[in-house]
Amino acid sequence: MKEFELIRRLTRGLPSNSSVVVGAGDDCAVLEAGPPDRLLLFKTDAVVEGVHFTAGTPPERIGHKALGRCLSDIAAMAGTPTAALVTIGLPRDFKTESVEGIYAGMNALARRYEVAIVGGETTTNPGGIFISVALLGWAPRGKSVLRSGAEAGDAIFVTGELGGSLAGKHLEFEPRLAEARWLAQHFAPHAMLDISDGLAGDLRHILKASRVGTELLATAIPISRGARLAAKAGSAAKPALLAALTDGEDFELLFTVASRNAVPLLDGWRKQFPKLALTCIGKITAGEGITIRDKNGARPLTAHGYDHFA
Amino acid sequence: MKEFELIRRLTRGLPSNSSVVVGAGDDCAVLEAGPPDRLLLFKTDAVVEGVHFTAGTPPERIGHKALGRCLSDIAAMAGTPTAALVTIGLPRDFKTESVEGIYAGMNALARRYEVAIVGGETTTNPGGIFISVALLGWAPRGKSVLRSGAEAGDAIFVTGELGGSLAGKHLEFEPRLAEARWLAQHFAPHAMLDISDGLAGDLRHILKASRVGTELLATAIPISRGARLAAKAGSAAKPALLAALTDGEDFELLFTVASRNAVPLLDGWRKQFPKLALTCIGKITAGEGITIRDKNGARPLTAHGYDHFA
Repeated sequence: MKEFELIRRLTRGLPSNSSVVVGAGDDCAVLEAGPPDRLLLFKTDAVVEGVHFTAGTPPERIGHKALGRCLSDIAAMAGTPTAALVTIGLPRDFKTESVEGIYAGMNALARRYEVAIVGGETTTNPGGIFISVALLGWAPRGKSVLRSGAEAGDAIFVTGELGGSLAGKHLEFEPRLAEARWLAQHFAPHAMLDISDGLAGDLRHILKASRVGTELLATAIPISRGARLAAKAGSAAKPALLAALTDGEDFELLFTVASRNAVPLLDGWRKQFPKLALTCIGKITAGEGITIRDKNGARPLTAHGYDHFA
Repeated sequence: MKEFELIRRLTRGLPSNSSVVVGAGDDCAVLEAGPPDRLLLFKTDAVVEGVHFTAGTPPERIGHKALGRCLSDIAAMAGTPTAALVTIGLPRDFKTESVEGIYAGMNALARRYEVAIVGGETTTNPGGIFISVALLGWAPRGKSVLRSGAEAGDAIFVTGELGGSLAGKHLEFEPRLAEARWLAQHFAPHAMLDISDGLAGDLRHILKASRVGTELLATAIPISRGARLAAKAGSAAKPALLAALTDGEDFELLFTVASRNAVPLLDGWRKQFPKLALTCIGKITAGEGITIRDKNGARPLTAHGYDHFA
């Protein structure tokens, strides 16, 4: 069974209560916590040796990635992170310096975003390092951006450049927290998430949740330099465009806004975040699935995003 | 390096912020979340195949234990749990029915305590099943019970019976949520935790945090039937009293109250919770460490609680 089918089965009929605003299925859970002006965001994410990083990865980068993934999910809801708990499973022969390095990487990133690390747990995991981070954050009430709000006619945007993340970016990415909050404050995105499974796979999450389709422009998709170089050198298993569509772990923002906001958004963005690319890659349609248009015309995209159990 | 020494090193100088009321080192983190009448509790806890349960354990009980451990920590702060996220790492050859069984066990327990399960993650863990649960809860402001409030002269109480938990109770225990809230409401415990490392080990956590000592009465310590039978049959590696002091994973409440409250507490408890034993096992002293008194006199207790890396 594939990952998404398993998750679908497991999340059917989960226990709920009156505090739940958004349960399983979005970037974060959204909870009622009392304050009249804001809602609580709640997220966990794990990184595992041999799956999300290799045995030789510098510990600081493992720590950065472990917390960074959760921060990126808070960004995807246009939230502000506040406090984290860290669970680390360690093999029996672990080195103290490795664990301290993991914490050093997490602590540095946490300090940059004023996130408190309020505890956690170390335990034994015979198979290798397993890190699970739980993170809390806040979103202004009515301003957290879900996956389900995309509308036909919306323009689709992506930050940064995509593909080839495994060459290094997946361990060093910066969560787009300030960018997402600015977006929510000024341009009311209809739907947003952070790209972890790959542009195509994650875009499908938005389409499914919003019951819409999309047409992408092949030439507009921002392909990372790494993905281009790998494709040119013939060392990549796939062409650069496919890498940008399916590699995953980009941790960039993917979002839609009303088409009338597209030009003002691009103008405002250039002034606010001159160092980070923002690209319009296509539009939301009333149809179904992803259509991709290039010089030869339009065709349905069948490639899948990264599947953790594939 | 032992677990507690590693934790001490890792929790030195963790990033903090103004939302933190209690950070690393107690049963739960305590956070300011806005409501004037209450504080937010935040906890994660993990269970790992081969460490906290064996490969043949029924999946429902694994799920029960995974969530139950976190619920027991919320109880230790006299809190009310509200929402959980579940991270499950699975070996590549996992069975769908096992994962559904784990969720069934968690869901049943969550429903019993009106806890919402608001999402989480499944990922790969090559070495075996690894489950990390993150749990939120609330405690009335000023009523969450820390480890650090024990005072010389306090009476020490424990719920239920101790020792021999590995024979089955560690997979089936009931978190003492209602009992802890009742205690906090009526008898203002000075210090409280739930017993996971073993009575002796966990009592040391209270003594260290509160800078006090204790004298226990050997004959007063409630020893479980299982620990007694195992010791009688000669099948146990240690005498029944030592099992009660050091086995761990009892998930009973250990707490101290002002000595004037001891008798009213025992009276009130018998009416409120007639099916659950409550035992006074000794008193807090101005000294240091644990002294245990039996018919041969008093001697310092040197046995250690369960150490996860021992």
